Amino acid sequence: MAVPSIAIVGSGLIGCAWAVSFARGGCSVAMYDATEGVAAAAPDHIRAMAEEMAAADLLMGETPDAVASRVRVATDLADALKGVSHVQENVPEKLEIKQAVWAELDRLAPKDAVLASSTSALLPSAFTEGLAGRHRCVVAHPINPPSLIPAVEVVPAPWTDPEVVERTAQLMERIGQKPIRMKREVDGFLMNRLQGALLQEAFRLVDQGIAAPEDVDIGIREGLAPRWAVVGPFETIDLNAPGGVRDYVARYGGMYSNMAPSQRDPADWSGTALDQIDAARRASVPLDDIPKAQARRDSRLTALMQFLRGQSRA
Amino acid sequence: MAVPSIAIVGSGLIGCAWAVSFARGGCSVAMYDATEGVAAAAPDHIRAMAEEMAAADLLMGETPDAVASRVRVATDLADALKGVSHVQENVPEKLEIKQAVWAELDRLAPKDAVLASSTSALLPSAFTEGLAGRHRCVVAHPINPPSLIPAVEVVPAPWTDPEVVERTAQLMERIGQKPIRMKREVDGFLMNRLQGALLQEAFRLVDQGIAAPEDVDIGIREGLAPRWAVVGPFETIDLNAPGGVRDYVARYGGMYSNMAPSQRDPADWSGTALDQIDAARRASVPLDDIPKAQARRDSRLTALMQFLRGQSRA
Repeated sequence: MAVPSIAIVGSGLIGCAWAVSFARGGCSVAMYDATEGVAAAAPDHIRAMAEEMAAADLLMGETPDAVASRVRVATDLADALKGVSHVQENVPEKLEIKQAVWAELDRLAPKDAVLASSTSALLPSAFTEGLAGRHRCVVAHPINPPSLIPAVEVVPAPWTDPEVVERTAQLMERIGQKPIRMKREVDGFLMNRLQGALLQEAFRLVDQGIAAPEDVDIGIREGLAPRWAVVGPFETIDLNAPGGVRDYVARYGGMYSNMAPSQRDPADWSGTALDQIDAARRASVPLDDIPKAQARRDSRLTALMQFLRGQSRA
Repeated sequence: MAVPSIAIVGSGLIGCAWAVSFARGGCSVAMYDATEGVAAAAPDHIRAMAEEMAAADLLMGETPDAVASRVRVATDLADALKGVSHVQENVPEKLEIKQAVWAELDRLAPKDAVLASSTSALLPSAFTEGLAGRHRCVVAHPINPPSLIPAVEVVPAPWTDPEVVERTAQLMERIGQKPIRMKREVDGFLMNRLQGALLQEAFRLVDQGIAAPEDVDIGIREGLAPRWAVVGPFETIDLNAPGGVRDYVARYGGMYSNMAPSQRDPADWSGTALDQIDAARRASVPLDDIPKAQARRDSRLTALMQFLRGQSRA
């Protein structure tokens, strides 16, 4: 397979993390950003990220030098798009901006290139409908940063060629991501729908005075999540009954359907529930210390991903 | 603080795992089981479990010998309950059995002992209402096995003395568990309500043809769960906006409330969704290989807990 050539359009944090992923997978990467100076600053960010990833053995055996050497700063958008087979767009999450940028991408990119957006909030149909090349447009939504977290949702618009979904998914596998091949677009895609369902219940438990915010965090962090990091939710229930998932549903389905009526109504995400959660969080991490807490999360998560990737290779 | 003396009533797998937890916390433990031979077999199981926990540095610095030396097999229920301050009950999840056993526990245990059930499926009010000592009855529900997974839900019946919840929670902390102090009983307690909400959406995504079962597992296992194993769901959203959780809700609350109407109806847990999930799981793990897959999950989870406990101490 020829070395894929990639354009990163929007070279902030997400764009730089994508560049590390693509370059560790052997791709050549051109960086572009409409805001002056952003793309020029990207190589330094990419090198720093690549050093961290290398220290955690997350560069697929590549060196930071090799990763850095595959990345160049484009002189303009047309230059970035020259000869590429895949465009990864990471511009701000405003519909008008996406629509304007995507019209340009479709006009300037090689006709056989896949155009992929990192959007989490917009459906692909919202900014690709009127494009001549709308069949080659797709969402490839990562959990940030993609260089660290494997899952990427590949989401087609109604007019996306299924072969474009498959080609994008295979490119993701090549660069060390784990693609989720969605069959159609839907609000929140897959991961934010699962997170949303869980958060609704989390807010509800606090709003109804059943548990404190810290206890919800304990229940996931010290209870359910370690298992889910080893086996997903369907694998979990499949391995929790002697006869597999069908047996599990026969044994425990009644418990879940008993609680379902009290889980129908969306929880109140404002008012006293939010007050309690905010108070608990600020008692634990004052607002000024959020950057420090983020850095600690990131360094723990990097070490955890190194551990988990080593385990799944074993 | 005096060394707590514990009775384990029901000495199968869950009872033995509890024995390891209590003994690593310095407690003396008496094992009882109504089925002949079960309690007699417990010491060997407990020693084997303790060896595994020691190898993963999960015995809080204790040796398997020290753990084993703190466990004895009781001659009968009255003997098991003699002088104990906490009873941990793990009998089958049938209401009639629980009611009969709890009448005995309340009659025979010292008046100041806490009576705790490991039940996941029954509310504490269902088997404690008529007891003279119902104020000292509580649920302490672990994720199995408790020797490995820290979270334990402490759930009061309406008549449980709040001091009994607090005493149980403190005992759990002493033996290396992470207690969740629930304010009242509710179907599914806290963890199964969160798991249930997520599973409803997982079944829905498959039932509506949005994603394949494997893709749901990828989204959690390779996407959301590693982060949740480091920071819980409220911590996660708090650290995902510069102004904390209040800022997160202002930015992204709209996305979640947009998807909420399509998440109201309980999913179909039978029919074609279950067929697809079952087919995907059996293609990955044939029914006969479930024990092997469970063993692999357990050994990966043990190593992961060792890693995470080491991280959170650092």
